[in-house]
Amino acid sequence: MWQLYQFPLCPFSRKVRLLLGEKSVGYELVRESPWDQRDEFLSMNPTGRTPVMKHAERDIHLVDSVAICEYIEETVEKVPMINGTAVNRAEIRRLVAWFDEQFYGDVTAPMLHERMHKRLIRREPPDAKVLREAMRRANSHLDYIDYLIDHRSWLAGATMSLADLAAAAQISVADYLGAIDWAGHEQTKAWYAMFKSRPSFRPLLSERMEVIAPPPHYEKVDF
Amino acid sequence: MWQLYQFPLCPFSRKVRLLLGEKSVGYELVRESPWDQRDEFLSMNPTGRTPVMKHAERDIHLVDSVAICEYIEETVEKVPMINGTAVNRAEIRRLVAWFDEQFYGDVTAPMLHERMHKRLIRREPPDAKVLREAMRRANSHLDYIDYLIDHRSWLAGATMSLADLAAAAQISVADYLGAIDWAGHEQTKAWYAMFKSRPSFRPLLSERMEVIAPPPHYEKVDF
Repeated sequence: MWQLYQFPLCPFSRKVRLLLGEKSVGYELVRESPWDQRDEFLSMNPTGRTPVMKHAERDIHLVDSVAICEYIEETVEKVPMINGTAVNRAEIRRLVAWFDEQFYGDVTAPMLHERMHKRLIRREPPDAKVLREAMRRANSHLDYIDYLIDHRSWLAGATMSLADLAAAAQISVADYLGAIDWAGHEQTKAWYAMFKSRPSFRPLLSERMEVIAPPPHYEKVDF
Repeated sequence: MWQLYQFPLCPFSRKVRLLLGEKSVGYELVRESPWDQRDEFLSMNPTGRTPVMKHAERDIHLVDSVAICEYIEETVEKVPMINGTAVNRAEIRRLVAWFDEQFYGDVTAPMLHERMHKRLIRREPPDAKVLREAMRRANSHLDYIDYLIDHRSWLAGATMSLADLAAAAQISVADYLGAIDWAGHEQTKAWYAMFKSRPSFRPLLSERMEVIAPPPHYEKVDF
């Protein structure tokens, strides 16, 4: 059985979980709080970041969410999520990098720092200025997603792909932390509402991070 | 003909160039200085980052160095660089992410900021404290590479792979900017010396970034 080392608000673990869910691959969750810098975890992954995916019986341990997703895609053929021509696949990977790096850096990382790390580790209040800037940037990102969905059925093209999963993973964490104002983003809202009702997504939405509650609309499919 | 938008000290463009070189794919260089934030470049890549790879005749433009490398690997079969079993491939991608993110964040990015951006854009001197910290971290990274090469022929396993190219790309930029002290890293030095003599690497080493000169040993195969 696969074990996934993660914590409830890790967006990269959520991306991997959505991919495993869409492909119906079973796995167990192992709670890992990277800020504890556990020696055993650092020896599995010197970067100290989640997710790490381990299969003890097969003696496999995989590190880095991009490497893990490519591994899953290569070894579980059903429901391909990096699909189409080489150019289509490059567009999927471009958008995965966009959400993993740009959206994460602009929105998810500062929100996690202000609303989770400061609370859990330093017991400090968040900086309102940083929160406002992250929310402003989240709004620009939703504009970009509106634009993509105006031109395509799914973010990277005609079919659902890892780009949609990477986007939903980041947005769901940002939404949990109160960074998303859905007003004026009807296209993205409709795309995300459809996502929320998928069986791969339901378990993530029902989980809670200790001490931080999501806004009332967070789990609702009709929001 | 492929055109690669880049500047001489962009480590991600160097990774792509090494891959194109190893696979004998021809390309033209187009100089792009991302700090100029040219509208035409931003419309090709909203992140504003190099490299972008374009093929005007085939109407293809590729963005993000990971997506570009995967595209090249998928479309040019000879000299495979993400090779072996799915587990081997995951290890190659883990190390590519390690050098693209950890080495870049710890060493290359602060060196480029202090020694290139400050000089070119802000005309300020570098912060000696930041330079010292980047050099200290570079030393830890070389320790990790020493450790990998102690256990394997190449960084990710028995054959040369994209992990070696990603590492050489970051190290070459860090070395140009004076961050690398080779003393005490004989394994890594031997691996890098072999790299420096490869035809894919020679053109990169002979290029210069305006206003910044590399140290005397930079281009020498025997250093």
